Amino acid sequence: MIRMGVIGYGYWGPNIVRNFTGLEGSRVVAVSDMNEGALRKAKKSFPHLWVTPNSDELINAGDVDVIAIVTPVFTHFELAQKALHAGKHILVEKPFTYKSSHAEELINLAEKKKLKIMVDHTFLYTGAVRKIKELIDNGTLGALCYFDSMRINLGLFQHDVNVVWDLAPHDLSIMDFLIRERPSAMVATGEAHFNKEMEDISYLTIYFPKNIIAHINVNWLSPVKVRTTLIGGLKKMLVWNDLDPDEKIKVYDKGIDIKSKKGVYKLLVSYRSGDMWAPRLDQSEALKLMAETFIECVVNGQDPVNDGKAGYRVVKMLEAADRSLKKKGEIVYL
Amino acid sequence: MIRMGVIGYGYWGPNIVRNFTGLEGSRVVAVSDMNEGALRKAKKSFPHLWVTPNSDELINAGDVDVIAIVTPVFTHFELAQKALHAGKHILVEKPFTYKSSHAEELINLAEKKKLKIMVDHTFLYTGAVRKIKELIDNGTLGALCYFDSMRINLGLFQHDVNVVWDLAPHDLSIMDFLIRERPSAMVATGEAHFNKEMEDISYLTIYFPKNIIAHINVNWLSPVKVRTTLIGGLKKMLVWNDLDPDEKIKVYDKGIDIKSKKGVYKLLVSYRSGDMWAPRLDQSEALKLMAETFIECVVNGQDPVNDGKAGYRVVKMLEAADRSLKKKGEIVYL
Amino acid sequence: MIRMGVIGYGYWGPNIVRNFTGLEGSRVVAVSDMNEGALRKAKKSFPHLWVTPNSDELINAGDVDVIAIVTPVFTHFELAQKALHAGKHILVEKPFTYKSSHAEELINLAEKKKLKIMVDHTFLYTGAVRKIKELIDNGTLGALCYFDSMRINLGLFQHDVNVVWDLAPHDLSIMDFLIRERPSAMVATGEAHFNKEMEDISYLTIYFPKNIIAHINVNWLSPVKVRTTLIGGLKKMLVWNDLDPDEKIKVYDKGIDIKSKKGVYKLLVSYRSGDMWAPRLDQSEALKLMAETFIECVVNGQDPVNDGKAGYRVVKMLEAADRSLKKKGEIVYL
Amino acid sequence: MIRMGVIGYGYWGPNIVRNFTGLEGSRVVAVSDMNEGALRKAKKSFPHLWVTPNSDELINAGDVDVIAIVTPVFTHFELAQKALHAGKHILVEKPFTYKSSHAEELINLAEKKKLKIMVDHTFLYTGAVRKIKELIDNGTLGALCYFDSMRINLGLFQHDVNVVWDLAPHDLSIMDFLIRERPSAMVATGEAHFNKEMEDISYLTIYFPKNIIAHINVNWLSPVKVRTTLIGGLKKMLVWNDLDPDEKIKVYDKGIDIKSKKGVYKLLVSYRSGDMWAPRLDQSEALKLMAETFIECVVNGQDPVNDGKAGYRVVKMLEAADRSLKKKGEIVYL
Repeated sequence: MIRMGVIGYGYWGPNIVRNFTGLEGSRVVAVSDMNEGALRKAKKSFPHLWVTPNSDELINAGDVDVIAIVTPVFTHFELAQKALHAGKHILVEKPFTYKSSHAEELINLAEKKKLKIMVDHTFLYTGAVRKIKELIDNGTLGALCYFDSMRINLGLFQHDVNVVWDLAPHDLSIMDFLIRERPSAMVATGEAHFNKEMEDISYLTIYFPKNIIAHINVNWLSPVKVRTTLIGGLKKMLVWNDLDPDEKIKVYDKGIDIKSKKGVYKLLVSYRSGDMWAPRLDQSEALKLMAETFIECVVNGQDPVNDGKAGYRVVKMLEAADRSLKKKGEIVYL
Repeated sequence: MIRMGVIGYGYWGPNIVRNFTGLEGSRVVAVSDMNEGALRKAKKSFPHLWVTPNSDELINAGDVDVIAIVTPVFTHFELAQKALHAGKHILVEKPFTYKSSHAEELINLAEKKKLKIMVDHTFLYTGAVRKIKELIDNGTLGALCYFDSMRINLGLFQHDVNVVWDLAPHDLSIMDFLIRERPSAMVATGEAHFNKEMEDISYLTIYFPKNIIAHINVNWLSPVKVRTTLIGGLKKMLVWNDLDPDEKIKVYDKGIDIKSKKGVYKLLVSYRSGDMWAPRLDQSEALKLMAETFIECVVNGQDPVNDGKAGYRVVKMLEAADRSLKKKGEIVYL
Repeated sequence: MIRMGVIGYGYWGPNIVRNFTGLEGSRVVAVSDMNEGALRKAKKSFPHLWVTPNSDELINAGDVDVIAIVTPVFTHFELAQKALHAGKHILVEKPFTYKSSHAEELINLAEKKKLKIMVDHTFLYTGAVRKIKELIDNGTLGALCYFDSMRINLGLFQHDVNVVWDLAPHDLSIMDFLIRERPSAMVATGEAHFNKEMEDISYLTIYFPKNIIAHINVNWLSPVKVRTTLIGGLKKMLVWNDLDPDEKIKVYDKGIDIKSKKGVYKLLVSYRSGDMWAPRLDQSEALKLMAETFIECVVNGQDPVNDGKAGYRVVKMLEAADRSLKKKGEIVYL
Repeated sequence: MIRMGVIGYGYWGPNIVRNFTGLEGSRVVAVSDMNEGALRKAKKSFPHLWVTPNSDELINAGDVDVIAIVTPVFTHFELAQKALHAGKHILVEKPFTYKSSHAEELINLAEKKKLKIMVDHTFLYTGAVRKIKELIDNGTLGALCYFDSMRINLGLFQHDVNVVWDLAPHDLSIMDFLIRERPSAMVATGEAHFNKEMEDISYLTIYFPKNIIAHINVNWLSPVKVRTTLIGGLKKMLVWNDLDPDEKIKVYDKGIDIKSKKGVYKLLVSYRSGDMWAPRLDQSEALKLMAETFIECVVNGQDPVNDGKAGYRVVKMLEAADRSLKKKGEIVYL
């Protein structure tokens, strides 16, 4: 039975507690938060919990095997470092750290101490993303041409990060999971309307080898919520609308056939337009599956797809986006 | 009665002929096309027409007052120049020309000869765009924050231009019409998957003064057709979905209120979320209204909103997009 | 070359003229309408036509082989009878006649004179209905359980018929085409809000042998336009949304499996929920295909699916609906 | 502090426990269920609860003021009667009872004992239904013409009732709440495909005075989930789509204007088509609001809108539907 301590009981913390409590192989024993109201709330919902405002007590507790760090990104590194030093496996809220050098340091430390890191890229455990991964890996889509994602809604300005660090980690971690190639460069544009330090709208273009291009549109000022990703392959194309309760993924037998290529300037193309198909998706809760996977990895010593290295790659791209943004879209090589 | 000659009877030509034929104040007298099949088709549908493969005959015909140029963009300049020299007003398919210097030359020539130029930015005459213009100009939306447009579908590779020149003129002409400020810079990214010379996916960011940002996503490789524009103002925000038959424009009483600003790092924001409202739109055919306006301008000597200068501004932005694209997103100042 | 005369040039007449003009095997030679404005309009659009206010001239014209009757339902019988007596094949707007006895008389007359009748049930020629027919006939859906159709919008009160006679002929002719069994009884309810003589809302239940049940919801007072039909089979179920431009038909691998049946009161059922699939549909214009079929039937002596007998069956159901409506839903056996 | 005992811990019971636990003025002290697994589940989620398989213990417990009956409908009467006799207020799952005579008996008993009955018509407490009520009562919609509701999905055959008793109580209780007039008659049609005793599809027409007509379409065999109600008034019409996360209610400024009425056969009508408007709805959880209202009624002696009489009226309509169904749509007067 893996025993877990959770640091941070704000918006996401209660979900972590509920899910790890529900598992066969784990239980949450303690929660820490600097906010007293949060601790009261935790105690009321889960009376069996030990609660404390002092995260060090959790980190150093003998009956805790795993620390979940569900706090603002600027605190991740210090807490994670302490927890690893104390011999605890860690589950860290995304984005992993606010500097890629910190992420590297944590990865090395965990390796040395033979501890596991999981970064909370929950989307990788949804039925939708797992189905897309399958459709790419088994060749259904064919060679990829593009990945185009839109994640917009009225946003949350109380964050200490801009819209890229708030919303794009979802898309970047999904993109990183789905596309085998590693990105080569990033161009990020955007604007800050309410606070010079914080872009509230941003557009990321990510260049890949083999002509794959990715684009991510994140926006805190949208009147409507959109969560849509288009993925185009040479054989088939798909649209993932995460807000559609019934048919999140639609696979289109549509595309372009290049019949022949005579000379440099001539190109015979034709359009295919066939059936559309919405595969049934596994409906299980992603967070539950991620929790199970984490416990399994801790017990069996495997590495999850969302390990520290995956977290590091996402932070690298976020840093590149920031650098490009500051120079109004100058290309940043990765 | 304004007499019109139409050069080019491909996809769009028949619509031009039908609409100008239907008007009180105009009739189409002749059609020219280098393709014999096109001429046969024109003759069958409109038996009263004089048809000829030689466009010069039309341009020089004494009983023609206006020449409509509905041919590929690379031919616009020469045909337009000839027509203006021959003393004809011109209606030119978008984009106006493939070089902005050509556009300037035509504008000067028309001015000198006191002739009218209209560029076929038909969207400006739709009920939707006219309603949005009204909502911006009467202050309903408040100061603009962003304009974000998506225009994607399975495309038409037989074009002699890339996806930006094919699809973005719509969005750029609408943006130019709606936003009073003039854009200051452009960042364009994209990829060419089938033909090195021709991007089939592109993402344009256009910077404006006063923190307004615009973004245009054009894609020839999308399995679904999307025609959606989001426009965010400080007071209200709207979504224009041109494919919705009933409620193309939805105005949201949603936004951000900045309550106070204490110090540099503190910002009190709150979110407004009120009713949504879909105004009734004028349902008349945009092309018919544009045709009427053109005849009126020719008769009364006024300039339409989609005059040569509007066409020029769009071409300038297309050129900037091309330059930025070639350098993988380098900023181009306008 | 089949020569056609068209009686009635209101809303639908121009479509008939345009389509039969466009065919290889037919041309429209004359149009008749009692309204002079309609005749002027016909002459302007199709200058080659002979137009006359006197339908008898058309019916008796020697150079006319086929008469299309595109007039209000109350005039169909007399015009059709005259045309058949004059040796012309007839295409009659739906509903065929306003009394089923009239329909029978016309069928008999046509048979005697070896002439063809087609009733304008255009929907049977759409890609959607033909695909549904195929999915039923090839066993994809399995044994049918129900057919449930909704056809509502803001209506047209100038009609001389109630909402059942105005809208339900579409659904009834489609139902008649798709379901092999013949209906056994009808229950119709409804209400007339503005004119005691004319129901503006009605709900039809049609009972079939083998537990198939059909339901048709027609409404002239709906603020939204709906054109949706659900068809449930034991193996698969489908939804046909005729207003969806891209995916009109969605086939669901959903249903109920009866595992066993122990005793009278026990029933082990389980739910299947699999993929959804939207087959590509033939996009050709239904009216064009119907016109071609009619010409073919006239030339080759075959009977179309929408022959006089199909028209008669629909009128029988409309009569039954009226009778049931008058008695507030009393069952009427067919 | 009102103390509550909950009988029945299946699908809905946990929601009742959670909501009444969360309130200031109440707490749940005990849960009873004949199923041991259910009791274990209750104990695990809410360790403070007293659980027992014997509902009589709860009903007769001294420290319980209110009994919630969340069991199959066939058990409601006996449990409710016992609870009232024991001096407890009761909250009863819908439908109230399986016979209207039982409902009457309970109402009388509660009155005599000065105890409160609430029937769990939760929908009446949603932001959507309360907004519609407001739009009707303040005259926005004008005099009502129709109420047309569709509630379909793949159903649950394990129920001991047919589709009418399973799904229609929602629509009937909403209709009863919204329409001031009392219904005069019912026509119900339907079909049972898998079990002769249990209709799985049914169509109810309910006649009201003043030409108001209501229709309810309930179906357990639909591949898609639909929860849509159209309400037409003389001034405005609305569509309530309960599955739309953002704009559940759309109010249309559409309708019919009767300009004049000359003679019996002439009627000048015109169509209005104006803006659409989606009012912001209160987002609070309906069940929480209902729970608060119930506690308030118990404390202050008021009657809720969903009191025993409302429950009785719904059961009367369900009985009428059953009687009409058995006779294939024969009208049943209420």
